[in-house]
Amino acid sequence: MHGLRSAAYDSRIVTRKGGATATGVNMDNVNLREKFERVKEYWSPKIIGEVNDSYVKAVKFKGEFVWHHHENEDEMFLVVRGTMRMKFRDRDVLVREGEFVIVPRGVEHMPVAEEEVHVVLFEPKTTLNTGNVRNERTLQELERL
Amino acid sequence: MHGLRSAAYDSRIVTRKGGATATGVNMDNVNLREKFERVKEYWSPKIIGEVNDSYVKAVKFKGEFVWHHHENEDEMFLVVRGTMRMKFRDRDVLVREGEFVIVPRGVEHMPVAEEEVHVVLFEPKTTLNTGNVRNERTLQELERL
Repeated sequence: MHGLRSAAYDSRIVTRKGGATATGVNMDNVNLREKFERVKEYWSPKIIGEVNDSYVKAVKFKGEFVWHHHENEDEMFLVVRGTMRMKFRDRDVLVREGEFVIVPRGVEHMPVAEEEVHVVLFEPKTTLNTGNVRNERTLQELERL
Repeated sequence: MHGLRSAAYDSRIVTRKGGATATGVNMDNVNLREKFERVKEYWSPKIIGEVNDSYVKAVKFKGEFVWHHHENEDEMFLVVRGTMRMKFRDRDVLVREGEFVIVPRGVEHMPVAEEEVHVVLFEPKTTLNTGNVRNERTLQELERL
C-alpha cells in the first residue's frame, strides 16, 4: 500500500552516479528515510530539495510549537511517520502517516505532536518557521541535508 | 519507519469536520491512499492540493511516457508506491517508494515504470504534462479529486 517504507539502501549504490547539473540543481534520487535519520533536533526544518520558488524540508516535531501565521505563504505538511495535530483557532485537524494538510496564508495555526512525527514541508523559500512571531524558536538560516 | 501505510480510514470520521475556508482553500487532512484509489487511468494527473502557485497532483504511471521538457517549471516526483525510472538523456535515476527526484526546468526527461507506480507531483499550476510536446497524451484540463 502507499508507503515510504521499502526504499532500499542498496539502490543508491546504483542510482547515485549523477550529481548536480550544470545549474547546480540536484537531479539524484533523494531518500526520505535517510534524510530523517540525519535530523537530530525537533522543530528545526532542514532543506532537502528545491523546486521552483519553494523548498522541500524535513522536520521532526514533538510537543507543541507556537501559534503563528504566515502573511504571504501557504504551507503544506505531509506526514511520513507518526501522527500530528494541526491546531487552528476553531478546530483541530489530525494528520496521520500518508496524509497532508495545507495551511493557507494568513491562517493562525500551531502544530502539536504527542509522539515524534516526521513531516515533509513544502513552502516558499521566503517562509520563516515561526511566521509573524519572533522568539527563541525562530530560525533565520536553515541547514541543507 | 517512514511510511504512508497506516493512515486509518476511521480517522477521517473524526477529522473531516471542517471544509473549505472563507478563501475556498481546503484545510482538511488529505489521505493519499484514498486519493489514489480514485485514480483510474495511467498518465492522468489529478489535482489533490493547491499550495501557493503550485498544484499537488496524484498520478499513476505504467509503461513509458514521452520525452519532453518544461521550459519554465521544475517538477518534483515523490514515489509513494512502487518504483519508477526517470530517464534523462545521459542517465537513468531509479526512484523507489519513499524517494523523490526533482527535474529542473529545461531538462529532457521521460518517466518509465515497469510496474504500476503511484507518484505525488509538485509543480507550478502552469505545468502541462507533456511540456514542450503536444500529442494525444497532452491533457489541457486536469480533474480535481
